[in-house]
Amino acid sequence: MDIAKEVTSIAKRAKSASRALSGISCEAKNKALLAMAQSLIKNSQILIRANKKDLLAAGGMRLNAAMIDRLRLTEKSIQQMSASLKAIAALKDPLGRVIRSVKRPNGLVIKKVSTPIGVVAIIYESRPNVTSDCIGLCLKSGNAVILRGGREAIHSNIAIYNLLKAQLRRYNISQDAVGIIKSVDRKAVDILLGLNELVDLVIPRGGEGLIKAVAEKSKIPVIKHYKGICHTYVDNKADLNLARKVAFNAKVQRPGVCNAMETLLVHKDIAKKFLPKMVKDLKDAGVEIRADAATRHIVKGLKKAKPEDWGREYLDLILSVKVVGGLEEAIRHIDDYGSGHSDAIITKDKKRAERFLERVDSACLFVNASTRFTDGYEFGLGAEMGISTDKLHARGPMALEELTTYKYKIFGKGQIRT
Amino acid sequence: MDIAKEVTSIAKRAKSASRALSGISCEAKNKALLAMAQSLIKNSQILIRANKKDLLAAGGMRLNAAMIDRLRLTEKSIQQMSASLKAIAALKDPLGRVIRSVKRPNGLVIKKVSTPIGVVAIIYESRPNVTSDCIGLCLKSGNAVILRGGREAIHSNIAIYNLLKAQLRRYNISQDAVGIIKSVDRKAVDILLGLNELVDLVIPRGGEGLIKAVAEKSKIPVIKHYKGICHTYVDNKADLNLARKVAFNAKVQRPGVCNAMETLLVHKDIAKKFLPKMVKDLKDAGVEIRADAATRHIVKGLKKAKPEDWGREYLDLILSVKVVGGLEEAIRHIDDYGSGHSDAIITKDKKRAERFLERVDSACLFVNASTRFTDGYEFGLGAEMGISTDKLHARGPMALEELTTYKYKIFGKGQIRT
Repeated sequence: MDIAKEVTSIAKRAKSASRALSGISCEAKNKALLAMAQSLIKNSQILIRANKKDLLAAGGMRLNAAMIDRLRLTEKSIQQMSASLKAIAALKDPLGRVIRSVKRPNGLVIKKVSTPIGVVAIIYESRPNVTSDCIGLCLKSGNAVILRGGREAIHSNIAIYNLLKAQLRRYNISQDAVGIIKSVDRKAVDILLGLNELVDLVIPRGGEGLIKAVAEKSKIPVIKHYKGICHTYVDNKADLNLARKVAFNAKVQRPGVCNAMETLLVHKDIAKKFLPKMVKDLKDAGVEIRADAATRHIVKGLKKAKPEDWGREYLDLILSVKVVGGLEEAIRHIDDYGSGHSDAIITKDKKRAERFLERVDSACLFVNASTRFTDGYEFGLGAEMGISTDKLHARGPMALEELTTYKYKIFGKGQIRT
Repeated sequence: MDIAKEVTSIAKRAKSASRALSGISCEAKNKALLAMAQSLIKNSQILIRANKKDLLAAGGMRLNAAMIDRLRLTEKSIQQMSASLKAIAALKDPLGRVIRSVKRPNGLVIKKVSTPIGVVAIIYESRPNVTSDCIGLCLKSGNAVILRGGREAIHSNIAIYNLLKAQLRRYNISQDAVGIIKSVDRKAVDILLGLNELVDLVIPRGGEGLIKAVAEKSKIPVIKHYKGICHTYVDNKADLNLARKVAFNAKVQRPGVCNAMETLLVHKDIAKKFLPKMVKDLKDAGVEIRADAATRHIVKGLKKAKPEDWGREYLDLILSVKVVGGLEEAIRHIDDYGSGHSDAIITKDKKRAERFLERVDSACLFVNASTRFTDGYEFGLGAEMGISTDKLHARGPMALEELTTYKYKIFGKGQIRT
């Protein structure tokens, strides 16, 4: 019962703090963000020491190399966290924005104005930078935040949290505006997900299992951050050198993340010219290719793709490759197997690019660029709460704008309805 | 099993039609909307005849007077339906709107552009006008719609649906873009709510029981349209004549709807002056008053409010009345008992009005006007899918803008991530 008390108390204080946040100026919040950014740099050794505890424990937790890579804090990654906080401080105030304003024939003035959501909980795994990104984005957008990181990063998360929270006091912002659940017991999450009277939104960020479990159990609205089965389609009107470079980057630069390419689609008319060199580049980088019959006809000795490979998020140096009859077949393939995350077309033909952009139903659609750019910082949003694969409220990189809702403010002079 | 087949087939065809809708111009959609508007007027007798069947059957269904009132179609209500379709046609295209556009230092151009959600299902009760409002709003916003009205309005709904659907053909729009579930079996709803691969959004609109059931069962994201426990706070700096007129309207003009006032809060300093006349007006109109001790001290013979009355949606000629110490107590009362729907302050003091607008966490906040104005048509939105009490994606009257999501279109020249 202690866990229930702890979690409920954090949520109650967050709710109360979220109301008080409406009285804090954007200037004060920006100053706090800059102080937080500075504090991370100044105390980087404290963070690296705390992170060492997590890294030492990681051995006993069956973490693979990619997970340990995500967990590790370095001077460089701390600088990136600090840069994100500074970037958030530099962004425009997302609150009080008049989205629409209208004067009705009866004289009523109706303003649709952006406001904070209230209390946002985030349940995440591995990466300690999520702790500071979420604190920064929620503070700037006037939301109280409740953090629940994975146990593999618990020391790092608490160390970051403590540093950032201490800065709030200096600017008269209630420290209850940032809460952290320190218990690593899974019960804590179950309890949190039942507090729909106190928490307005839950964001799960991590493996598919975590997200499914949260979505099923939660009484609180959830914005899901599911997998990325990202495609690159190389059109017959593509600059093939550009295509090779971009597709290579999308697969190889960081294969363990959701915006990495998992399937390469190639127009049949350029397949013979394009595929041998492309496959060689990829194989030289250690990529395992799983190919359809047409591809295997062009490049011998490749592994056969199984039907289930087309919908697979490898998160690894593995790639599905398919030859398609043209743009429309590529679109239908993405309809059938994509996850609505990020997909790219490589073409010099403007009309085809437009058709791809209109017709493919994904959060982020690229023309002649790598899917790896789907990222809050790369989009100029400072940081991100995650990358939503939902279509409602937030889609793609979720940052300040998506952390707001709105209310209507209606100004009358005694109008009544007849 | 026939029901499962029917519902799944409607949803599959809707999904396919939603893709085709992206190729239909706004002009064609507006023409179809105007033809629909005309068709309703021209065929009003057909609608009224179908409606008579529902009204005749209503006797056997334990419908109360308010429900029958909502069910009834008249020349006037058909004109209003038609006017809504015309108003929707006159509104700006909600699609293709560039919400944000940025050129990044690496040359990537990133555009956040509004797009349809996809397939929207609406589950509703009584009012046949919902059928035409939802068809109109979904068509204009490029969404396929699946309608599931209550069995009490089945003949009216199908008659409206048939008229409007027939207009699509004239403008080469797939008729599958509007689907209706004709089976009145409740199983049909259960099946629909499991089709999360085909349907993107479900909107339940009706009684609390319906909405709870849908929210609990649905695998599809739900935007809830819960009850309205609407407050009017009369400040001591109010124009008391204006306050009497506005509060009277908010309670009496149409008590059976969600934006009607359920609780009147009165500042203690003007309570003695204000309450006797206000209560007399209300009692003369047949309103039963349930009052706190302070109110009963000022006006004798009133019924005592029970604790549970403060959080009650009467939807009837009943009103809770309470004297409060001032603005802050009024805000806390609304925090505790309101439903985040619509709340009003009556005051001449700008600062207090601002404080109320900032601090109260409701979809629609009125200064010196009746809460009854919370309505899509009154807001200039043409019509509404309903009034959302959720905070995510859509809040308050839900119309064209809220029927869109967005995608990012990113234009590159071979950029890769390093």
